[in-house]
Amino acid sequence: MGEQMTVADVERFLETAFPQLEGAKEAGHDSQEGDRRHYTVVSVGPATATMRLDPGIRHLRPGGTVSGPSLFTLADVGCWVAILAQIGPQEMVVTTNLTINFLRLPKQKPVDCDCRILKLGRRLAVVEALMHQGNPAEPVAHATGTYSIPPANGR
Amino acid sequence: MGEQMTVADVERFLETAFPQLEGAKEAGHDSQEGDRRHYTVVSVGPATATMRLDPGIRHLRPGGTVSGPSLFTLADVGCWVAILAQIGPQEMVVTTNLTINFLRLPKQKPVDCDCRILKLGRRLAVVEALMHQGNPAEPVAHATGTYSIPPANGR
Amino acid sequence: MGEQMTVADVERFLETAFPQLEGAKEAGHDSQEGDRRHYTVVSVGPATATMRLDPGIRHLRPGGTVSGPSLFTLADVGCWVAILAQIGPQEMVVTTNLTINFLRLPKQKPVDCDCRILKLGRRLAVVEALMHQGNPAEPVAHATGTYSIPPANGR
Amino acid sequence: MGEQMTVADVERFLETAFPQLEGAKEAGHDSQEGDRRHYTVVSVGPATATMRLDPGIRHLRPGGTVSGPSLFTLADVGCWVAILAQIGPQEMVVTTNLTINFLRLPKQKPVDCDCRILKLGRRLAVVEALMHQGNPAEPVAHATGTYSIPPANGR
Repeated sequence: MGEQMTVADVERFLETAFPQLEGAKEAGHDSQEGDRRHYTVVSVGPATATMRLDPGIRHLRPGGTVSGPSLFTLADVGCWVAILAQIGPQEMVVTTNLTINFLRLPKQKPVDCDCRILKLGRRLAVVEALMHQGNPAEPVAHATGTYSIPPANGR
Repeated sequence: MGEQMTVADVERFLETAFPQLEGAKEAGHDSQEGDRRHYTVVSVGPATATMRLDPGIRHLRPGGTVSGPSLFTLADVGCWVAILAQIGPQEMVVTTNLTINFLRLPKQKPVDCDCRILKLGRRLAVVEALMHQGNPAEPVAHATGTYSIPPANGR
Repeated sequence: MGEQMTVADVERFLETAFPQLEGAKEAGHDSQEGDRRHYTVVSVGPATATMRLDPGIRHLRPGGTVSGPSLFTLADVGCWVAILAQIGPQEMVVTTNLTINFLRLPKQKPVDCDCRILKLGRRLAVVEALMHQGNPAEPVAHATGTYSIPPANGR
Repeated sequence: MGEQMTVADVERFLETAFPQLEGAKEAGHDSQEGDRRHYTVVSVGPATATMRLDPGIRHLRPGGTVSGPSLFTLADVGCWVAILAQIGPQEMVVTTNLTINFLRLPKQKPVDCDCRILKLGRRLAVVEALMHQGNPAEPVAHATGTYSIPPANGR
């Protein structure tokens, strides 16, 4: 596999395909959270991608831990980015199935999500995602997602 | 099983346990979305609960479909509510595993999530969630979640 | 949806598509288990199927409980049968993903697996399976499976 | 983590805890398959284990591919072995949840299952399993399993 998109390409595509990722920007005037981007693409490689969540108030639960839905979003977007980096911008790549295991309560600091493509077929892709806060041997969550690839994408 | 909490009890508990469910209220001045509540508990019963998402802009993706993370949140909170309605308010009931299947693209209208407890043990509960927009025979998504129940809850 | 196959049709097709379901027959001389069929199709209906496992020694674990792999097989074949009853005999309908939750230790007696199609698309079908021993409100296991449908099936 | 059991210890324990793994031995006279062991423990390490399936006729489907239930068994037992190698022989470590993705049709040759513990808690362990036929970058299946650890195990 060879990458079709760079980190900058993917980031640009995310802004149009997932505008709701950044609630602050959408609302237009969230002084507390400002324009700071919470979900960023760190790197893409052959069959891999790393996505980071730098949590804001909206991503936390009482006690200062990162919420489950925020980790789900991180895994889902990270896997999607890993696929798009390989096949190019395809808005209609959609999640069909995602299983997430929550392993340790995350601390209130950035979470890295290392994604690896397990299979990239013509119709389906399966990607795994390991989420950690610096030590991949002590992950906070793990996910595997299946994505449907539209038939008309010419591959 | 007999319910320990009413819909009003659960709604009140959600406000403290999941304040980030309502981003609008958290930001304090989201004129577009106002104070309108998007996630609401419709009913609780013996081993069941129904949760509703009335989607706002932040829950949508381009094309007007409800986003995957919004459906995940709906399923996760709905299953949690079904358990709490049985065992009483326990903030430390946490999701350990959730599998979600996305079945049909949701329309831009409310999604009902019918939750049913499959098992309520001393240490683990397993709940299934069927998400639909009026016709349960044509669901938009289905999830099963496992929740860890803290040992100190005296049951 | 309307059924394309009867119980007898499906049973006949299973014998060629899943010969290894019946280890005893395959070996040809298992005096202990004889020709008795352990996995049988009980019924098929619009979008549903019920499969039964009448456990033999090979399906048990120490203590007399039905083994996890035997329940997995029951769920997987049951979901497959539910799909085939709708679309007709298609050997190349294959499982792409299956999640199973083990809920209660089964007793050494028959397990019924009630399968329900959640989605039957052109390329993917998603089916849920509830396994119980007489009381569906106290299931022993629950599964959801995704199946890939070959493009050439003319639907 | 430090291993509590060697490969030989685990193999011995498997014979009593999972006798049905070897249908041939159970039947007592399967001339075709003989006493040959199909599922074997290849190695155990800190937080890891590798299990192998050398498929016999009963593990195949028409076309000569390894059946889904056989891969499920391989993953389930492999994950269980990885846990037991760490905590010692505990028959009552049971699977509560397993998600398996089937990625490529396996060929009729041995399948290696590389298992890695993602979390080993006091009450739950989560393990992932990558199944391949020599090239881990082209896996035939991937699974994640959750296992319940009995409270009385003194850890």
